Formats: sequence, structure tokens, C-alpha cells
Amino acid sequence: MAVTAQELAAIIKGEVHGDAQVLIDDGRTVERAGRRHVVFAGSEAFLKKLGGCRAGAAIITRSLFKPEHLAVGIPAIIVVDDAQRAFGAALQHFRPPRARRMIGISPDAYVSPSATVGENTCIHPGAFIDDDVAIGRNCDIYPGVFIGAASRLGDDVTLYPNVVVYGNVSLGDRVTIHACAVIGADGFGYRLHGGKREKVPHFGAVRIENDVEIGACSTIDRAMIGETIIGEGTKIDNLVMVAHNCELGKHNILASLVGLAGSVSTGDNVICAGQVGVADHVHLGEGCVLGSKTGAHKDVPAGETHLGMPSQPAAEAMKVIMSQQKLPALLRTVRKLEARVEELTKKVDALSASGPSESSKTAA
Amino acid sequence: MAVTAQELAAIIKGEVHGDAQVLIDDGRTVERAGRRHVVFAGSEAFLKKLGGCRAGAAIITRSLFKPEHLAVGIPAIIVVDDAQRAFGAALQHFRPPRARRMIGISPDAYVSPSATVGENTCIHPGAFIDDDVAIGRNCDIYPGVFIGAASRLGDDVTLYPNVVVYGNVSLGDRVTIHACAVIGADGFGYRLHGGKREKVPHFGAVRIENDVEIGACSTIDRAMIGETIIGEGTKIDNLVMVAHNCELGKHNILASLVGLAGSVSTGDNVICAGQVGVADHVHLGEGCVLGSKTGAHKDVPAGETHLGMPSQPAAEAMKVIMSQQKLPALLRTVRKLEARVEELTKKVDALSASGPSESSKTAA
Amino acid sequence: MAVTAQELAAIIKGEVHGDAQVLIDDGRTVERAGRRHVVFAGSEAFLKKLGGCRAGAAIITRSLFKPEHLAVGIPAIIVVDDAQRAFGAALQHFRPPRARRMIGISPDAYVSPSATVGENTCIHPGAFIDDDVAIGRNCDIYPGVFIGAASRLGDDVTLYPNVVVYGNVSLGDRVTIHACAVIGADGFGYRLHGGKREKVPHFGAVRIENDVEIGACSTIDRAMIGETIIGEGTKIDNLVMVAHNCELGKHNILASLVGLAGSVSTGDNVICAGQVGVADHVHLGEGCVLGSKTGAHKDVPAGETHLGMPSQPAAEAMKVIMSQQKLPALLRTVRKLEARVEELTKKVDALSASGPSESSKTAA
Repeated sequence: MAVTAQELAAIIKGEVHGDAQVLIDDGRTVERAGRRHVVFAGSEAFLKKLGGCRAGAAIITRSLFKPEHLAVGIPAIIVVDDAQRAFGAALQHFRPPRARRMIGISPDAYVSPSATVGENTCIHPGAFIDDDVAIGRNCDIYPGVFIGAASRLGDDVTLYPNVVVYGNVSLGDRVTIHACAVIGADGFGYRLHGGKREKVPHFGAVRIENDVEIGACSTIDRAMIGETIIGEGTKIDNLVMVAHNCELGKHNILASLVGLAGSVSTGDNVICAGQVGVADHVHLGEGCVLGSKTGAHKDVPAGETHLGMPSQPAAEAMKVIMSQQKLPALLRTVRKLEARVEELTKKVDALSASGPSESSKTAA
Repeated sequence: MAVTAQELAAIIKGEVHGDAQVLIDDGRTVERAGRRHVVFAGSEAFLKKLGGCRAGAAIITRSLFKPEHLAVGIPAIIVVDDAQRAFGAALQHFRPPRARRMIGISPDAYVSPSATVGENTCIHPGAFIDDDVAIGRNCDIYPGVFIGAASRLGDDVTLYPNVVVYGNVSLGDRVTIHACAVIGADGFGYRLHGGKREKVPHFGAVRIENDVEIGACSTIDRAMIGETIIGEGTKIDNLVMVAHNCELGKHNILASLVGLAGSVSTGDNVICAGQVGVADHVHLGEGCVLGSKTGAHKDVPAGETHLGMPSQPAAEAMKVIMSQQKLPALLRTVRKLEARVEELTKKVDALSASGPSESSKTAA
Repeated sequence: MAVTAQELAAIIKGEVHGDAQVLIDDGRTVERAGRRHVVFAGSEAFLKKLGGCRAGAAIITRSLFKPEHLAVGIPAIIVVDDAQRAFGAALQHFRPPRARRMIGISPDAYVSPSATVGENTCIHPGAFIDDDVAIGRNCDIYPGVFIGAASRLGDDVTLYPNVVVYGNVSLGDRVTIHACAVIGADGFGYRLHGGKREKVPHFGAVRIENDVEIGACSTIDRAMIGETIIGEGTKIDNLVMVAHNCELGKHNILASLVGLAGSVSTGDNVICAGQVGVADHVHLGEGCVLGSKTGAHKDVPAGETHLGMPSQPAAEAMKVIMSQQKLPALLRTVRKLEARVEELTKKVDALSASGPSESSKTAA
């Protein structure tokens, strides 16, 4: 619903400069905005792009704002503490989320008589809640979700469609799990016995702490004995594998297609970029960063950035990568050097033979 | 059901040479065919294998066919314009697909009263169609499929079991999505705020254009503001990640386990082989090819083939790879060169000391 | 339920040394055990850790046991043939699995009238069993599972929630498939036809042999003509891609995020570590091992261990990797060598010019 720049500023708690009456009805990126759209600039890079932008209004972070921005051709400038957040609030106004469907427990869901469900929790048709499950308040359990026996969910948990939570899994408060993710499948453990792979039984559990978000089609396996742990506030992208007995710290970031082998542990604030692989029992120290496609086979110290396969500190890895580009030329250089040394050797031998001396023979 | 080579030729629109009465009842690969089977040869490589083949009939592409093929020992040769296509038609005859189950809208599916469903569309038990969804004609919505509020499907769309389409997603005509794929989950975006990862809300959408096919367990995330776009005719394999705000051109091919980070864009006819990773905001130019496991951190020009991590033009990457194999030997060579130069230096120093001369001292 | 070390020894068929009356009520890892816990040591590495362990009892493999272990401070030592297996039996006692829910065929599942279901098989609410499916005895078909027309399951098969088995797939006895795995989706095959990708129809099937286990969100595609085969006893982790027409031998191990392209074949006892990729039509010989992230583009001989991208024998790959670390230093060394050779050349030229001789000119 359209609002004036003045009204928008009130919504997002900012001050308008320029034409406070310009009408705005949605947000867009700087490249795609038209006269009825608001954009945001929360960094110098975005500010530079404002020149060619055709938006009706721009939200700018206060610490970056300069009077010259009023002259870039955008009718209204709204100055706020944090442009990205304010833009989110603006979008929330223009694109209000659908009201939550307060359906309670659908008669077309299966809920075991021994399960408990907190108030204001919705369980959609086709969900299956097994024996002794405990679900907190204000949760949304979408269609097709399975929750295995004795698993426990905190409050404000969202399980999107077709999520599978095996038994004996605990999820904290405000945990969000996207569609088709699987929590608590057996760890991948076998031992050779008589030429066959014999399954190592997995009696352990999974513990997902508060404020964790897990992406679509990701898998978190259960521990063999103890618990696989995803620490508070950690965010996991789609198609990520966390194997049995991993213990992740708080506020980690795992990007898509990352694979952590069994018993990997991490400190807080660790970041793994896309397609990273970490070998079993490796520890990733607090605040360390693994660049995309890195393969870590040994512990990574706290605070370091590692790259490559096998992984090494970024500065060294970059040196190796840069050097590799020079390899074909280096091979040619060395071949030339060999020829020149060969030639020099002949010359020197000839000089030695023809000339003096006692001293040169001794030196050789 | 068995047919003569003559009858088969009529079905696949070809001409028989040899024994037109030989009975054929199925298709096989050249290696596994027996007397009642037909095989096909659509390339020189396959033609070479016909010698040892025990099939009753072979389908050969006209432009490759030579009279000598009649002498390889296969009773009947059927010449057609395109052997692979004709073989497909033959298999369609021998293995007719099951008739589509025209069940209409199952009473065991949930379809919101505000959803619309086109004629001849089947919605199977256990599917869930949310508010304001619009589904076209001749669609098959298999069991366990979830379609979120306000999403729109064109005609002739197939969603295999347990596919999840979040809200505000649009699918064109003739779109096929395989089991457990997830379209429209939130993009993976967080910002640090007070030491915690704060979720960046994703108000955007996903647009899948006509004739797109998406593999099992693949995930296409929704945009933050605008649309994540999969261009017409693009084919995506299993377990592929396409992150928020990606915009793919037409007729792209993404093989299994490829990961595209946020805001990647591609031209038409781009090919990414298995396990490729592309960093955020990278553009892949029209017709470019990324070899398997390539990691692209910067734009790839149209028409080029790139390899390696980090990616570079294939010819250069191959040179580096070949050079790497020579590295251990190169290290030895350089050590020997050092020793020889050391020796030469001593000899030359000795010669200089023992012999003349003003000129050599000046040169040094 | 707590037992004495004496009673535990009877359960796991071992002999107690030390305090046979100490009470034990669960198992733990060596690091986390307390006085009421039993631990196990099945290798020298574990034995070394027993010193600081606070467990009430330890299970030790007979061949590793020495009298000095009685003095490490753990009250009771139980000696058995195989400590890891015995520990599993102990856990089975302390954490007895829930009784299987013998629900039979749920009225809330869909089972086609033409499907057959063996005795003692349970089909949970929300499962969908299509026409002409045959399911053996003692199977567990969890909620949300889809089994397509004419597929066949042996006895003792477990399909966890939301597994999708397309039509014409056969599963042997004792096959276990974890949640959201997809068996039998179309292979990824297209051909260019008039500038568009035309789908190559997939008329083939999938055969999963006895005792195979497949992880969550893994995908096994159907063959174009024949069968995609997973050999007996093979174990596949989560998020693994096996493409059309692959034929895997027996007792293979595929770790997480492995991708096998079309028509890959393997011998028995092959191991692929995490994130391995194998190109189409490659053969992996019996007993070979591919290290993590390896990319195999050509056949791997039986029994060999290969690493790297592109893959090569481990010893050579390690040499190359070690050499790469020396590359930056090598570049500096060669630059110095060039300078020294340049200098030597000048000196030698000066010597040649100033000194004699006929012979040196000839040699040059």
C-alpha cells in the first residue's frame, strides 16, 4: 500500500530530506527501481550506484550520509541508523506476510496420544508426531513433517514441509528447519566383520540449540553414543552434511554443500564457505574461516583463514596458487638454465685445460 | 510385444536391410543384446562395436550407414534419420508407459478453497495446496507435494512425490520437478548484530520458466527482494544448490552437486559439470563451460571453457596441471643445477685468481 | 537399568577383573565417562587414554589386554573378544530400542488394490503404495513414503519417512533407506535438438541388492535402458549422487556428497571418501580407494589408492602436493640461479677474451 516518503520515514524511524510527499509502494534493488520504489544504500559501494538510480526514495545509513547525496537525482532521501535493517522494515510494510494460519492440531495429522503439544502450536495435515514427543508453544509443524519418538521441541519452532526428525532429538527455542532436511538419521559407521560391512549401532542423539536455522535437504546425523550438537545461533545452508558426533560451537556459518565428517568440533563464530570438506576428528578453532572448496585434514587454529586442498593458511595458499601459474614458464626457464650451465661448464673446462693452474684443480 | 524388423521399421520410420522378418521384443545396449533385441548406433564409436554384437537388429543413423554394416552379422539393419531418437521410439513401443491415473483431485489431498485447479490435473492423496494457489491444466501433483500460498503453476507441470514449493513461486508450462526438491526456501542471508547472526528477511520470489526440469533433492532459494530465475529450457540435475537472487539464462545444464552462490547470473547455454562451485555475483557468459569441480571466483567470458580451483581457461589450466606433474623432478633438477653452478663458480673464481686480467674483474 | 560389572560381563560374554560389584548404568566415551559408566578400548590408541578415565568399568579386547590395565584406576575391567561389539551389546542393554509398532497396514496409508504386502509388514499413515507393487515380510514403511508402480521390495526392508521409490525399482532383503532419499528418478540425459535440450527418455530400472543401506537425501537415478545397480552390502552415506546406469559392486563404501556420473562401474570393496567425483564411464577397480575430494577422470586399477584432481596414485599425488609447498621458494631459487649464471657467463666470457686459447673456442 503506497505511502509518502514522510510516512515511510515514520515507519522506519528516519528523517526525510527532499520531497517528503513522493509516493512509494515497494522496495527494489538500485538497478531495478522506478519512481514508486524505495532503495537502500548501506555501504559506499551502494552509494556510488545511486547516481543512475531512478528510485523515488533512498534509505541511507546515517554514518555514510553526506549532503551531496541530496543532489544525485533521487527525490527523497531517508536517513536512518542502519539502512539494510530499515529497508527490511519498509519491505515488511509493503509486502506484509500472510497471517499465520491458526489451525491448531489438524484432524488429518497423526499425533500420538502420548505426545504433548504446547498452546498456539499448529500441526498441519499429514504431519506425524510419534510417541512421547514433546512440542512447545507457538510452533508450526508443516505438512509431511515426521517427528520420531521421544524427540523434544522448544517454543517458536518452525519445521517446514517434509522435514524428518528421527527419535531422541532435541530442538531448542526458535529453531527453524527448512523443507526435506533430515535430523537424526544413523551415523555412517560400519566395521568389517567376515568380509562384510557390519553396522555400528547408533545409540546417541542430536541436540540443536536455540536460534539455529537449518537449510533445505541438509542432514544432521545422530551420535554413536553421546550427542551431535549444533550450537546456539548457528546457521546452516542447504545440502549440508553434519556427520555423527560433530559438536559445533555457537554462531557458526556453514554454506551450501559443506560436509563435516564424524566427530568434527568447532569453536564459536566459525565460517565454512561452500563445498568445504572437513575430515573426521578435526577441530576448527574459534572464529576461523575456511574458504570455498577447502579440504581440512588437520586442526585449524582460532582466528585463521585457511584455503586449499589440503588446507593451509590463506597467505601461504595464495602464494602457492600464484606460483602454480608461473610453473609452465618456470619449466622453460630451468631448461634454458640447464643448457646455459652445460655450455658454461664446457667453456670453463676448456679454460681450465688450456690455462693454469694448481689452485683451480684444488677448488674443484 | 514382439514385432518383426519390418514392423519395427514402420514404427520408427526407417527402412530395413537384411532379414525383415526377424522377431524383436525389446531394446538393449550393444554389449547386452541377444537375438530378440534391437540396438542402436548413432556414432562411429557405436558402429565399431557392432562387430561382436549378438542383436537381432540394429538401428543406424543414415549419414553413418555404409553397405559393409550389412555384413557385421546382425540379421536386420534399420536405417533412420536419427538412431538415438528412433531407438527411443522403439523402446516406447516395447515398454509402453503406464496409463496416467486420471484421479482428479483426491479427497485425501488438502486443497484450499481459494486455490484454483485446471482441468485434467491430478492431485494425489497427501498433497497440500495452500491458499490462493493457481494450478494449470494437465498437471500431476504427486503424493506428499506441498505448494505454498499464492504460488502459480502453468500447464503440463509434473511435481514428483514430496516436492516442496514454498509460497510466491511461479512455475511455467511443462516444468518437471523430481522428488524431494525444494523451491523457494529462504535465501541464506544473515548479518552480525550484537554478536549474533540476524536473519535478513527474504521478501522475494522464484520464477521457473517453461520446459525446465529440476532433479531430486535440489534446492532453489527465493530472492531477497526480486526473483531467483531459472531460464527457459534449463535442466538441473540432482542435489544442486541455486542460491537466492541467481538469474540463470536459457538452456543451461547444471550437473549434480553444483553450487551457485547468491546473485550468480548466467547467459544462455551455459554448462556446469558435476561439483562445480560459483562464488556470489559471478557472471557466466553465454555458452561457457565449467569442467567438473571447477571453482569460479570471477566472471567467465562467453564461449570459454574453464577449469580448476580457482578457475582459469582450460588450456592454461591444463598446462599448469601438466607442469605440476613435473614438479618433483624439477625440484631435483634445480638442486643439481645449484650444485653445478656452485662448482662452476669455484672453478671460475680460481681461474680468475690464477690467471689474468683487468677485463674479467670489470665484467664481474 | 543399572547392573553390576559381573552382570554386565555375563550380558556381553566377558570376564571381569577387579571390582565385580561396581554398578554401571550406561556407556560413554572415555572422555565423558563417570563412575556409573562403562567405556571400551578396542585399539592401542584407546588404551592409552584409559589413564585419566573416570569410568566405573572398561571393556577391553582380549588380544590387547595386559595385567597392567588393572592398575589404571578403573574399578572393573571386562575382557572380551571384541570390545567395540561388546560395547554395542552393553548399550543395547542400557538403552533398549523401543518395541516396533506393529500397526499393520494403516487405514491412513494408500495401498493400491493390486499391490501385495507380506506378513508382519507395517505401512504407516501417509505412505502411498502404487499399483502392482510387491512388498515382502517384516518391512517398515514409514509415513510419507512413496513406492511407484511395479516396484518390488524384499523382506526386512526399512524405508524411513518421506523416502521416494519411483516405479520399476527392485530392493533386495534387509535394505535400509534413510529419510528423503530418492531411488529411481530419471537419469540426467538430454540431447540438443533444434537449439533446445530434448529429454532422453529413461526406460530402465534400478536394482538395489541385499543388505544395502542408503543415507538421507541421497539419490540413485534409473538407467536409460538396463539397470542402475547397487551391489550387495554396499553402504551409501547422506547426500550422495549415483547417476543413471552406474553399476556398483559389493560392499562398496560411498561417503557423503560423493557424485558418480553416468555409467560408472565399480568392483567389490571400493571406498570413495567424502566429496569424491567420478566422471562418466570410469571403472573403479576392486578394492581401490579414492581419498576425499578426489576427481577421477580415468579408470582406477584394483587395489590402488588415488588422490587429487585429476586423480593419480596417492604416492605421486603426495609428492606433487609436497612439491607445491616448495614452489614459492623454488621460484626465488631459480631467479637467483639465473642471476648467478648471468654473472658467471660474463666472468667466463671475460676470461675467454683475456686469456688463451684455441681449445676453449672450439669447446664453445
